[in-house]
Amino acid sequence: MTQTPGIVITGGSGAMGQMLIKTVLESDKCHLAGVVDRAGHDWIGRDIGTAMGGAAVGVTVTDNAAEAFAGAQAVIDFSAPVASVAFAALAAKAGIVHVVGTTGLADEDITAINAAARDTVVVRAGNMSLGVNLLVKLTQKVAAALDEDFDIEIIEAHHHRKVDAPSGTALMLGEAAAEGRGVVLNDVRDSGRDGITGARKRGDIGFSAIRGGDIVGEHDVMFAAPGERIVLRHIATDRAIFARGALKAALWGQGKTPGAYDMMDVLGL
Amino acid sequence: MTQTPGIVITGGSGAMGQMLIKTVLESDKCHLAGVVDRAGHDWIGRDIGTAMGGAAVGVTVTDNAAEAFAGAQAVIDFSAPVASVAFAALAAKAGIVHVVGTTGLADEDITAINAAARDTVVVRAGNMSLGVNLLVKLTQKVAAALDEDFDIEIIEAHHHRKVDAPSGTALMLGEAAAEGRGVVLNDVRDSGRDGITGARKRGDIGFSAIRGGDIVGEHDVMFAAPGERIVLRHIATDRAIFARGALKAALWGQGKTPGAYDMMDVLGL
Amino acid sequence: MTQTPGIVITGGSGAMGQMLIKTVLESDKCHLAGVVDRAGHDWIGRDIGTAMGGAAVGVTVTDNAAEAFAGAQAVIDFSAPVASVAFAALAAKAGIVHVVGTTGLADEDITAINAAARDTVVVRAGNMSLGVNLLVKLTQKVAAALDEDFDIEIIEAHHHRKVDAPSGTALMLGEAAAEGRGVVLNDVRDSGRDGITGARKRGDIGFSAIRGGDIVGEHDVMFAAPGERIVLRHIATDRAIFARGALKAALWGQGKTPGAYDMMDVLGL
Amino acid sequence: MTQTPGIVITGGSGAMGQMLIKTVLESDKCHLAGVVDRAGHDWIGRDIGTAMGGAAVGVTVTDNAAEAFAGAQAVIDFSAPVASVAFAALAAKAGIVHVVGTTGLADEDITAINAAARDTVVVRAGNMSLGVNLLVKLTQKVAAALDEDFDIEIIEAHHHRKVDAPSGTALMLGEAAAEGRGVVLNDVRDSGRDGITGARKRGDIGFSAIRGGDIVGEHDVMFAAPGERIVLRHIATDRAIFARGALKAALWGQGKTPGAYDMMDVLGL
Repeated sequence: MTQTPGIVITGGSGAMGQMLIKTVLESDKCHLAGVVDRAGHDWIGRDIGTAMGGAAVGVTVTDNAAEAFAGAQAVIDFSAPVASVAFAALAAKAGIVHVVGTTGLADEDITAINAAARDTVVVRAGNMSLGVNLLVKLTQKVAAALDEDFDIEIIEAHHHRKVDAPSGTALMLGEAAAEGRGVVLNDVRDSGRDGITGARKRGDIGFSAIRGGDIVGEHDVMFAAPGERIVLRHIATDRAIFARGALKAALWGQGKTPGAYDMMDVLGL
Repeated sequence: MTQTPGIVITGGSGAMGQMLIKTVLESDKCHLAGVVDRAGHDWIGRDIGTAMGGAAVGVTVTDNAAEAFAGAQAVIDFSAPVASVAFAALAAKAGIVHVVGTTGLADEDITAINAAARDTVVVRAGNMSLGVNLLVKLTQKVAAALDEDFDIEIIEAHHHRKVDAPSGTALMLGEAAAEGRGVVLNDVRDSGRDGITGARKRGDIGFSAIRGGDIVGEHDVMFAAPGERIVLRHIATDRAIFARGALKAALWGQGKTPGAYDMMDVLGL
Repeated sequence: MTQTPGIVITGGSGAMGQMLIKTVLESDKCHLAGVVDRAGHDWIGRDIGTAMGGAAVGVTVTDNAAEAFAGAQAVIDFSAPVASVAFAALAAKAGIVHVVGTTGLADEDITAINAAARDTVVVRAGNMSLGVNLLVKLTQKVAAALDEDFDIEIIEAHHHRKVDAPSGTALMLGEAAAEGRGVVLNDVRDSGRDGITGARKRGDIGFSAIRGGDIVGEHDVMFAAPGERIVLRHIATDRAIFARGALKAALWGQGKTPGAYDMMDVLGL
Repeated sequence: MTQTPGIVITGGSGAMGQMLIKTVLESDKCHLAGVVDRAGHDWIGRDIGTAMGGAAVGVTVTDNAAEAFAGAQAVIDFSAPVASVAFAALAAKAGIVHVVGTTGLADEDITAINAAARDTVVVRAGNMSLGVNLLVKLTQKVAAALDEDFDIEIIEAHHHRKVDAPSGTALMLGEAAAEGRGVVLNDVRDSGRDGITGARKRGDIGFSAIRGGDIVGEHDVMFAAPGERIVLRHIATDRAIFARGALKAALWGQGKTPGAYDMMDVLGL
């Protein structure tokens, strides 16, 4: 009898952790092999299904990551920088795939995680959504194919609690567009238009940030020339897509050569 | 035999003037009664059809506005502030409808034009498009019907030559939204988001300005609440709509009581 | 000490019932006064909070609607036609507001429910979303304001499980547009374009149905004339909006004169 | 002194022919070398600038294609199938680039044109817009990258005079999507949804056709999965883009090896 890959989730009591756990439990391509949370959390020792307010699933929350990793094939990790660096070393030791969705990593954190990638498969991305990663790739290709007769504008919309503008994903799209054109984003970035701006400068990449309601995340990359426009659009309506993208990465990594990968590799783009 | 109303166009050699002339010539609800241009222009004395590069239409360009107005029922006037004030007096004297689409009018110009409205029908608007005026009205009504759970965002897109942001029409929509809510736009205006902005302030009205290609003018008024959004959108693809709106105003004004009107009156909103 | 209105929810174990219960529990403008389900359901006698997999809230699920209604100010009812007719009589007897979101009501069901409205406030609507009801109203007004130079097209998008096209809400919007124009929808309805259709017939109202993913519901009403377009758009991203609309109706009904109302009355449009 | 390539336009008196002539005259990368029209047309022998209602440009309309081609570097040909086949032979003989935008070509016409491509560069495409061709390419790539969790829907909007649905370009996009997935479009095509359709069939490619006003042409390719959507959109607002695409093809073809090319080659995709 064959067995599906076993997945460990870190930070299991958090909102993203719980979404990852649900995603793994609902999939028939893998099974939940463990849930790790920080020492002292009151879910430690409880069945994760019960702790989340549902039926028991036979997996006990633990603060012993090494033990949890030992019997698994992958760990999906949206925790915090310090924790992710520690998990990287443990995952490498256990020889299991490490999927890292943690944000706010410093350069030295990334160096440490990449060092672990010498011994196992590591997939790391700022945005685990298949759609957004595909959009980034398309943006670069289209920017490279079209000349500056096509003005590039990136428009994003998010919920009203968001504190920064443009979004990190919008800037990632802007970087991709700039790369496609062979320019540096900071030289052509035009964000926050207001007042007497003068005519748009040829070659600029413009940004607009819309804020309202509970919009999960919408990104448009517009290429506008006289008489025609191309728009590449991504609409996220459910944060579960980030969990599904992470799970896809965990499954993709099975049997791959050790190394540092990103979602582009997973998508085969 | 009944006769359709005769329309005079001012500034006939300009881009907007020529568009107005074509619109009148194509309509079967009116006829072209005269074309006025400034003294000294080399089209004076020529047939306007020929001057515009086509067949003769039997109307000679003149610099004598009083004479042109005498045999007409309306004048459509997208000229300049000084000229429009003079035309207002002449239209009042001739007792013909004066449609004013001139922009950049100072307060004293408006006072002078309104004074002429004691003797004849004057229709004046910053934007003669039926659609935009309807959008302004709808924006006010929706803003009044919904509470501040609905975040209001106004997004506009224009060609890359536009030098100001947000557009005048976007600000007109913002004024309408603020009026619907019983607030002053300047107290709640949030334009040019960029950097660490903090969470969106409840009750604010946000503005985004997109610039690219030859976009004639697009305006979205978004009302975003948790779980749902309403968007009121206007898309202009041809500047001829401003000419058609002006002609509609000229015909609407026939037989009306003298007074100062706007496009809301013409639309019956 | 003043007390907020007490709300009873029918069909409390269903997906919509649970969403209504959560909405009431989260509101500080009302409190949960009772939960009714059918006799024999295994939640009868249990605390509704516990039954839903969370903490106890002190309200026991009952199959005795009369008793539950007695101590309440309103009942929100998304159950089934037969049940809603019975609840209407009980609500009238108890003198509490009856909000009816039940679909599939036959004409005789509506007659019975309206009869009960002689004695109490009844608010009934096929779609309880504030946004959709506002869109219906706007559609009628805009259709009345614009002539047939503006082609009307209604475009809707829903999840891939939906079995009918166009959506009921799209048809409701079509009815509103037809009413605004003084025509009968069936005479001008143009849905399912495919093949050699010939040119669009002036005055027709077109429908397009997009199906994909888990789209909750999006509706566009487009008015397209030469050179300009107006689009009225509603986007629903969370079914909770229907629960919030129902709760708003229940609170609005407090102290109103008995009678049959709809969401237009609640919105004050 | 270097000289820009000389371009000949066929069918010069038609709407598309005049647009091509204007595009060539406005470009500084080429010059107008000739205008061909059918024998007997009353523009034959006249200066094309004058005939079009403007100033003379020094090029006389001729019905002698062979002579016109002799002194040129390329011919842009949006004429009719029979004429295009004849022009193909003449262009091959003259050794000039033949850009073919003629629609309605039968298989034998294409065979004949391709035969001529043994001796000169021929660029042929059903749609000369850079943007649409790019969209076709992107659609194929994205369809290949994503699995059937992403429902594909193609939505197009055109003016109310269009007599067929879906548009030829929408079908071209559908073919590209089907190719990307390794299926045959006719097996999965779902157009004209209306009535009780049942749930959407996994793997289907849906089509919607919107008709209204004077919309030049808008195409959306939507990939909708649970929680996220990607939309690839093209908006055409001016038929001049087809003329610009053709001119770009004519310039691109200079110095290329003889052969049959399409716009994908011109774009370098």
